[in-house]
Amino acid sequence: MTTYQIAELAELPSRYRGMLLNCFTAPKPAFLVGTRGQDGKDNLAIFSQVFHIGANPFLVGILVRPDVVERHTLRNIEATNVYTLSAVTADMVPQAHQTSAKYPNGKSEFEAVGLAEYRYPDFAAPAVENSPLQMGLELAERIDIKVNGTILIIGAVQWVRFGGEVTEDGFWDAAAQGLVANGGMDSYYPLLAPTRLSYAKP
Amino acid sequence: MTTYQIAELAELPSRYRGMLLNCFTAPKPAFLVGTRGQDGKDNLAIFSQVFHIGANPFLVGILVRPDVVERHTLRNIEATNVYTLSAVTADMVPQAHQTSAKYPNGKSEFEAVGLAEYRYPDFAAPAVENSPLQMGLELAERIDIKVNGTILIIGAVQWVRFGGEVTEDGFWDAAAQGLVANGGMDSYYPLLAPTRLSYAKP
Repeated sequence: MTTYQIAELAELPSRYRGMLLNCFTAPKPAFLVGTRGQDGKDNLAIFSQVFHIGANPFLVGILVRPDVVERHTLRNIEATNVYTLSAVTADMVPQAHQTSAKYPNGKSEFEAVGLAEYRYPDFAAPAVENSPLQMGLELAERIDIKVNGTILIIGAVQWVRFGGEVTEDGFWDAAAQGLVANGGMDSYYPLLAPTRLSYAKP
Repeated sequence: MTTYQIAELAELPSRYRGMLLNCFTAPKPAFLVGTRGQDGKDNLAIFSQVFHIGANPFLVGILVRPDVVERHTLRNIEATNVYTLSAVTADMVPQAHQTSAKYPNGKSEFEAVGLAEYRYPDFAAPAVENSPLQMGLELAERIDIKVNGTILIIGAVQWVRFGGEVTEDGFWDAAAQGLVANGGMDSYYPLLAPTRLSYAKP
């Protein structure tokens, strides 16, 4: 086992530290966040900090770092109040990852990476047509995190569109739909079939 | 594709809805949170809402639902200011899942489920000895989420202890260490070897 103390972490080279410490919260979900700007330009960006906040109402959070490419996503969400989440499958990984490139103004990432848009009726933000799990969200709460200036965006899910079957007790299998987990910033893990356990009793 | 609108989600039976909507943010990390109470009693609880907040300083967030078994975790963190995260491997799944059972007062989950404690020097909270990724955290910020009353606990990582190798550019492979991803509330996915992509350029 290797051990790092806080002072040793702080001394690691910046890129190496960013990569390593992002690996330490893997496996994480991989979602594409779709938005439409006030200028009508669509945006698509990959996010790995996505998490369930609650089931009633259905709330999902994403963490935004205002200093990187994600700032377009944040600007569009705040301007239009709506956005989508589309889960990333193994087939979509190269295109999904490519959305993190800084494209020159004027070109939407859908067009640049070659992913088709799905448009839910009367919903401004586009989702990814060939993702087996698409959600449309409305901004519910913005939280500015004091310790490091990141921003937590909480959305209330307005609609969900998904492929595959749901079991009698509500289980939906991400592996059967080909979803991947994100590792560090540039790594994607395919999933094996899951183990399901019963409700834990003493 | 199946589509649910917000009103249809609200009408689903409560347990079914909880299971299904938790599946919709999978695959998620699976961590055991270790704490020590002021009475000296250790506590261990499984969490799947764990996420990277930043790398400099290294900050990790966990989402706590105050109405469930996790309330002991929250009480201990607020009393002692420290806690640990230990990543769950395929081998540990049965024991890790079992920590969610409501044990009668007096028995620590380490003892009840049969996981050995690791004690970092001068650090009150216990980690899980046979986890290949253990972190010690100090409470940095508590955020009460208004929309549904859940609580985001952000910790500053004080130490990390991990097995395996790190590549020259800082990549650490969660799959090589046997980590699993959490699905819905009761499902765990083993990981296949990752695909790594290069930094995305237009």
